Amino acid sequence: MELFYSKNISQGGTCLDQEESNHCIKVLRHHNGDRINVVDGHGMLYICTIVSDNAKCVEFEVEQSVENYGSHDYRLHMAVAPPKNSDRFDWFAEKATEIGVDEITPLFGDYSERKVFKGERVGRILVAAAKQSHKGAIPKLNEAVTVREFLTSDRFGGSRKLICYCDEVSSLGVEKVPIGKAVEGAKDIVIMIGPEGDFSRSEIQLAVEKGWQIVSLGDSRLRIETAAMISTAAVYLKSQGV
Amino acid sequence: MELFYSKNISQGGTCLDQEESNHCIKVLRHHNGDRINVVDGHGMLYICTIVSDNAKCVEFEVEQSVENYGSHDYRLHMAVAPPKNSDRFDWFAEKATEIGVDEITPLFGDYSERKVFKGERVGRILVAAAKQSHKGAIPKLNEAVTVREFLTSDRFGGSRKLICYCDEVSSLGVEKVPIGKAVEGAKDIVIMIGPEGDFSRSEIQLAVEKGWQIVSLGDSRLRIETAAMISTAAVYLKSQGV
Repeated sequence: MELFYSKNISQGGTCLDQEESNHCIKVLRHHNGDRINVVDGHGMLYICTIVSDNAKCVEFEVEQSVENYGSHDYRLHMAVAPPKNSDRFDWFAEKATEIGVDEITPLFGDYSERKVFKGERVGRILVAAAKQSHKGAIPKLNEAVTVREFLTSDRFGGSRKLICYCDEVSSLGVEKVPIGKAVEGAKDIVIMIGPEGDFSRSEIQLAVEKGWQIVSLGDSRLRIETAAMISTAAVYLKSQGV
Repeated sequence: MELFYSKNISQGGTCLDQEESNHCIKVLRHHNGDRINVVDGHGMLYICTIVSDNAKCVEFEVEQSVENYGSHDYRLHMAVAPPKNSDRFDWFAEKATEIGVDEITPLFGDYSERKVFKGERVGRILVAAAKQSHKGAIPKLNEAVTVREFLTSDRFGGSRKLICYCDEVSSLGVEKVPIGKAVEGAKDIVIMIGPEGDFSRSEIQLAVEKGWQIVSLGDSRLRIETAAMISTAAVYLKSQGV
């Protein structure tokens, strides 16, 4: 069952956009009277009937709706420094969406080689991944910010704030906690993954000051996107009781 | 610290092959007297000194050796049906190596669209990923086999044998166990991941007959390579106590 996406369906929209319409009629060969399922990107799934099979603008009538389609019972915000190779961030975006993520923020750290991030392609990947993995909600992709801006944001008061870091932290007077333990019992989580060179000592000191928990992902030496996916998987697996 | 790979160093070999030598001298600009670290692909790391900086055949002397370099304290064999798009299997091979896997077998299932698998490229990816993630052992890549051949193999007597399956199994008189629980306390694990259409009912019946435990990866609808990565991550995270 292939899903369609319509940005405005929840506001009463009754047409698919040109790209979705073309796919619906020319590729999938739907006709008037066919049932199609349409998500709104915010969790709603609508079961619809096609009333006009125009390949530029498919019109439909909503028969039924389902809330929280494909949702998960936690809220996860992944803040990840884009790797040098942009394909790798694309992979992470796709995988995190399949597994279950709510929000993604690209980060520029002190040691980031990349200080430019273009969200358009990743945005399309998130839509495609949500449709393919049957999630009614498309993860929100934010503008890139610096690590410092993210650490000092006042947005995360109610969240469990975690920052992954490879080096020792005992000399900073804090403990590093394994990620499985760090996400235990948390329903609203933010996890930060640094660039290839990791977070700087100064960024970590600021993180500690701002109440972020330093987290370990174990002994393996992981690429950025792998670390990000393991973190997402850790939250998902805990929530599934798996 | 970049690692070099030499197939025969443990048998007394004292030269890097042409590709590694070229990289050592032309790209990394090493000279006589420089220290380099060389893995043998089976867990040994050798700390060496370059005695001849020939770009076609770098010669070295072994100063020290380290056992089980970058190893993990479990044994994991992932048997995964290659997705239609071969990039995705490549991606899984790289990620599983970074995280920690010992053996990979490509599978052809009843519902597999792909019945051809060429291991050469994946083999190179495994070597590169092991070097990049500082593992002394390169995962073993087997020839592709059918799901039935794999299920009926007598190789896995001492292993915990797990097969991931989406559909219900209660009508087969067995229980499906969440993966986290299924890998608990196991040090030698084999996990099977089926093709896009999943395993067939007949393959699952054979699995049950042969003592394989049916496993759930939770509620999300995961692509093959994502399911494989989550399984690998689940084993890794349990072993890390994370």
